[in-house]
Amino acid sequence: MVAKKKGKRDLPAALAKMADEVIGSANKGKTPTLDIPVRSLANVRFNEQKRYIEMGSAKQEREFFNVNMAKKFMQTMCVAAACRQLEDEGKTTSIRDLFYMIKHRIDGSNENTVDDQSESDAVIEDLEVTAQFIREELNLFAENKGALAGEITLVDSGDTIDGRAVGSGGWAIPSIVEEDVIQFKKCTANFVLLIEKGAVWHRLNQDKFWRKHKCIILHGGGQPPRGVRRLCYRFVNELKLPLYVYVDNDPWGYYIYSVVKQGSINLAFESQRMAVPSARFIGLSSFDPEKFGLDKKSTAIGLDEGDIRRAKEILAYPWFQSKEWQKEIHNMLANGAKFELEALTNKSISFVTEEYLPRKIKEKDFLD
Amino acid sequence: MVAKKKGKRDLPAALAKMADEVIGSANKGKTPTLDIPVRSLANVRFNEQKRYIEMGSAKQEREFFNVNMAKKFMQTMCVAAACRQLEDEGKTTSIRDLFYMIKHRIDGSNENTVDDQSESDAVIEDLEVTAQFIREELNLFAENKGALAGEITLVDSGDTIDGRAVGSGGWAIPSIVEEDVIQFKKCTANFVLLIEKGAVWHRLNQDKFWRKHKCIILHGGGQPPRGVRRLCYRFVNELKLPLYVYVDNDPWGYYIYSVVKQGSINLAFESQRMAVPSARFIGLSSFDPEKFGLDKKSTAIGLDEGDIRRAKEILAYPWFQSKEWQKEIHNMLANGAKFELEALTNKSISFVTEEYLPRKIKEKDFLD
Repeated sequence: MVAKKKGKRDLPAALAKMADEVIGSANKGKTPTLDIPVRSLANVRFNEQKRYIEMGSAKQEREFFNVNMAKKFMQTMCVAAACRQLEDEGKTTSIRDLFYMIKHRIDGSNENTVDDQSESDAVIEDLEVTAQFIREELNLFAENKGALAGEITLVDSGDTIDGRAVGSGGWAIPSIVEEDVIQFKKCTANFVLLIEKGAVWHRLNQDKFWRKHKCIILHGGGQPPRGVRRLCYRFVNELKLPLYVYVDNDPWGYYIYSVVKQGSINLAFESQRMAVPSARFIGLSSFDPEKFGLDKKSTAIGLDEGDIRRAKEILAYPWFQSKEWQKEIHNMLANGAKFELEALTNKSISFVTEEYLPRKIKEKDFLD
Repeated sequence: MVAKKKGKRDLPAALAKMADEVIGSANKGKTPTLDIPVRSLANVRFNEQKRYIEMGSAKQEREFFNVNMAKKFMQTMCVAAACRQLEDEGKTTSIRDLFYMIKHRIDGSNENTVDDQSESDAVIEDLEVTAQFIREELNLFAENKGALAGEITLVDSGDTIDGRAVGSGGWAIPSIVEEDVIQFKKCTANFVLLIEKGAVWHRLNQDKFWRKHKCIILHGGGQPPRGVRRLCYRFVNELKLPLYVYVDNDPWGYYIYSVVKQGSINLAFESQRMAVPSARFIGLSSFDPEKFGLDKKSTAIGLDEGDIRRAKEILAYPWFQSKEWQKEIHNMLANGAKFELEALTNKSISFVTEEYLPRKIKEKDFLD
């Protein structure tokens, strides 16, 4: 067994506690039971005070001696045991690998422990909410995407990464960015800029935007993956940096921003470790084409039915109820058009780094 | 104007030559015409000697004074001019950005230079084959994916990247890895291992496989993007390193390997700058589950109709005609099953780094 790693919450103890309760019940001749928080929509709410989406307190019992629950109970134990093994060996693995780790024919039967990854994935989420560890803390990772450059030095698995010298490619942001893997060293940034698209990040990196404006730039290749969101959370909470989010002006862009800020309904449990309620929307705003003199004939893309429906849904979200946001979204609908980040290139190649972002930042032209 | 960069082929001269010919024709009162190599399937063949897929010599004329060609002719000039501008400013951009760069309403008309990115993308390919520069040399990039770690130090845009100290995330492989952007410094690797999946790369990186086995490990997040292929090409041709390709045992895995090795039919022109005919297939082979004692009940995934059809197509490819490859593919069909890289985790978490790959390499158990 490995000693508890510095800065890491005590996973072995939490898993042992779960196991002890099961064994305790069995020893007392009682049905082994797990209390698992309910992950359905009914148990999710927007916390107005904390400004993020969180899970409620509803729980369900999972019993071993119940034909409907016995298999899931066994799977929960299998996943927990595998996570404990990963922890003990100091390793991390993908959720696909975990599926294969625990997949075995049960002796003397024609039954497998799991037949499909959807089964182990669901159990991972159960374990996250029950043990109160996000999957990265369980040593599990999802696909990673995204890159970082800028005014910070960090240590990744013992290697020092100077964000000011990561070349054109950048440092590939890993899926697991917990304190025991990634430590922050010299930070000379005044803010963090999260960019929706890799191509736009590349423009900013090539123009060394982060040097001139003393910031960290990162992207998540579209909807930012968990590692990118968790890293932003840590920048904001540990380094007290403001986070600006830079996305396409379309309903999908608004949604990306809202997940970074409030968390998502599907993974409400993660909000407390990932949501950044202080994040601000730097653009593209539906008022920007006018404000920056974009040639609409060359850059506007008409909203289709799906966009309009989605924009109307977003209008109704509790966290988009401010006057400014209502104005922003209504204006998109009135424009009948959406604009991509790349549309700024129609002005000039480096318009985004030389004109657009500097003016936005100078005028504090953000939405909250 | 910027001086020609070290190690870079002379793009301005090539573009100027094209423009001069057009102007020359106009001055002589002749129809400006471009000779553009034909990019259709009919003009593609497998070169048995070079062992890669290449374009034939068929060309088509694109005339300015032809109602069917005038617009495309104009677009070709627009794209060439934009690429020249990028070159002069020392910048690179995405093909999406290029679309916006050249998109403008033509004065006194209701016509745009381009209406859809598919138009500029097609012209980019025309320009590549006509000017004989791949798009990365035209300063254009596609989406980048993938990461690298291992026994090489390289310089990326002036920053030194030590592959032995890139942390858990790795160095994000950029889309453009041409000589003027990326230079190789201290290489202590004996081979290069290209891995299909990021999750498996992560296992190898965490186990420091590259240190023990003196290699470079990289992945392309599925089908490797152009930057990853081009980098492999450079490792093989400049550093004289062998390249091993490690993919799922399914028809898609075979196909990924074949594109790395022979190039693709759709982008036959790129083969001469990207294909690596010496690449070898390290696994998973359809014989590996037997050879390595995998529990097939837990790891085999049945072939579906699409897999079987695809496997049969691959059986017929000229570059899969060796006795060994025919045996390999027929055996997959006989197994009626495919196996993912992650299936090895069913043996143990680090089976791939401690047992599978070391034995494969030791026994030179490759397919060519």
